[in-house]
Amino acid sequence: MKTPVTPVQIDRIENGSIERTDDLLVTEEPLEIRLGHGALDDRKEMRLSVTMRTPGNDEELVIGFLFTEGIISDQAELIAVKYCENVKEEERGNVIRAELKPDHAIDAERWQRNFYTTSSCGVCGKSSIEAVEVSCGTITPFGPIDPEVIAALPEKMRAAQTMFRHTGGIHAAALFDRNGELLLLREDIGRHNAVDKTIGAMWRNGIDAEGKMMLVSGRAGFELVQKCAVAGIPLMAAVGAPSSLAVQLAQRTGMTLIGFLRGERFNVYAPVKA
Amino acid sequence: MKTPVTPVQIDRIENGSIERTDDLLVTEEPLEIRLGHGALDDRKEMRLSVTMRTPGNDEELVIGFLFTEGIISDQAELIAVKYCENVKEEERGNVIRAELKPDHAIDAERWQRNFYTTSSCGVCGKSSIEAVEVSCGTITPFGPIDPEVIAALPEKMRAAQTMFRHTGGIHAAALFDRNGELLLLREDIGRHNAVDKTIGAMWRNGIDAEGKMMLVSGRAGFELVQKCAVAGIPLMAAVGAPSSLAVQLAQRTGMTLIGFLRGERFNVYAPVKA
Repeated sequence: MKTPVTPVQIDRIENGSIERTDDLLVTEEPLEIRLGHGALDDRKEMRLSVTMRTPGNDEELVIGFLFTEGIISDQAELIAVKYCENVKEEERGNVIRAELKPDHAIDAERWQRNFYTTSSCGVCGKSSIEAVEVSCGTITPFGPIDPEVIAALPEKMRAAQTMFRHTGGIHAAALFDRNGELLLLREDIGRHNAVDKTIGAMWRNGIDAEGKMMLVSGRAGFELVQKCAVAGIPLMAAVGAPSSLAVQLAQRTGMTLIGFLRGERFNVYAPVKA
Repeated sequence: MKTPVTPVQIDRIENGSIERTDDLLVTEEPLEIRLGHGALDDRKEMRLSVTMRTPGNDEELVIGFLFTEGIISDQAELIAVKYCENVKEEERGNVIRAELKPDHAIDAERWQRNFYTTSSCGVCGKSSIEAVEVSCGTITPFGPIDPEVIAALPEKMRAAQTMFRHTGGIHAAALFDRNGELLLLREDIGRHNAVDKTIGAMWRNGIDAEGKMMLVSGRAGFELVQKCAVAGIPLMAAVGAPSSLAVQLAQRTGMTLIGFLRGERFNVYAPVKA
C-alpha cells in the first residue's frame, strides 16, 4: 500500500547550528494510466499518460483526467477504473487501467502522439483557447460575487489540508458551493493532479458544477483554468497569480477568475466589466 | 515578437471596495520543440514536445531540455536551434527546431511514445531513479556547506528576479558558484522550464557544473532534481519542500539537497550523515 507521506531524517540548520531530527515528506510516485477499449487490440492496451503524483484517490485522479482532457464526457462511457494486477511487485498500485465502453469513440491516434493539447490546430495562445472551447460545454456564469464569502475561502481550505500540515509541501484544490461551504478537498504534489482528483470526485459524487467555486493553492496557469472550464465550474480562485493565457481563456469562456486571494484582498481578472 | 509580460485591466478588491486598475501578467504561450535529424524523413521532422512557457531564452530552454532529458550529451551533437519559418503567422516564435548531427544516434521510437521517463524500466520510484542514474554521469560531491553562504542565496535570487517583481507569479532558477556569487538566473511560468533555461545557458556558456549550486523558487520535485543530476550540478536548494522521490534521488546520486531555504533556517535532506 502506497502512503501519501514518507518519513525521513534531516539536518535542520538554524543560524549555523545543526539539529538531527525526524520529518515527513510528501510521497511522489509515478502513476501510469492505461486505457482499455474494445477498438484496441486487447493485449496491447494503450498507455495514456504517466504522471508523478501523491498516492491516494487514484481512481478519482483517473476519472478527472479522462474528463478534463476530453476523453470521456459522460460517466456512462466508463466501465471501470482498476489497478493492474499483471505488473511487477514494486509497480503494484502505480499502474491503473480505465476501461471504456466498446462503442465509445476515441481518437487513439491523437493519444499516441506525445503531445495533444494544441496539435491539431496550431501552436499559439489563440488556438490553445479554441481547442478548449471545442471540448467544453456552455458554462452558466457565476454572477455577482460576495467578497466576504470569497475572502473566507483560503482559511477554510488551509484548515482542511491535513497533508500540508504535516509536510508543508503539497498542493490542494477545493470545491465550494456558492455560500462558501467546503464540498471537497484533495491534495497532491502536482497542482493539476489535485484539480483532477477534485473534479473526478465531484463527477463521481454527482455534484453539479453550476454555481460552484474551485480554489487552488498555487497559481492559476492555463491548464488549471482549462480543466475547470471543461468541467463547467464557473468560478476559479487561486492563492497565487494567473497567467496571460489563463485570463484570456476565462474571459472567452465566461468564467470568473480570481487571483492573489489572500483574505480580504484579491484581484478579479475575468469577467472584465464593460 | 512575444513578450514575457502582458498588460491587463483588473478589479482589485480590498475589504469589499472595488478599484479598477492596470496590472501585468506573466505571459504563457505554448512552445513546440521539433527535432531535425538525418535519420528521420526530412519533411516529417519529429515533434518532440509542447511546453507551456514564458517567451524568452527559448534557445536555452531547448538546449537545456535536450540535455537534461538525455537526448544529447555533448554540444557537438547539436548543429543549430532555430525558430521555424514555415508556420502560420500567429505561430511564429512558438515553434522551434533543434537540428542534430546526422551521425548522432537517437531513439526515435522512445520519443514517439507519449511518455518516456519510466517506460522502459517499470513504473515505480526505484525504476524512476535507476533511469536517471543511467543518463547522468558521476557527480563530484559538493562537500561541506557554509550555512552563511546558503542562507544568503534566496535574497540574491529575489533581487535579480525582474519579472517576478512586476507580476508576482513566475518561477526562477539561479546558478551560483561555491562562494554564493550569482552566475545565471532565468524566469519562467514553468519551474521545469526555468531550470532548463538555466542549465541550457550554463552549458552554452561553457560553465563547469562542478562546485555549483542551483536554487529554485518553488518546491523540489523529482523532475527538477533529475535535471540537476543529469547536468552534474552537485547541490540543489529549494525555497519550498522536497518530495520523497527527490530526496531518494539526491541520496543515490550523491547530490546535496536543501529545502525550505528561508534565510538562516533551512533543512538538509541529502546527503544524510552516517
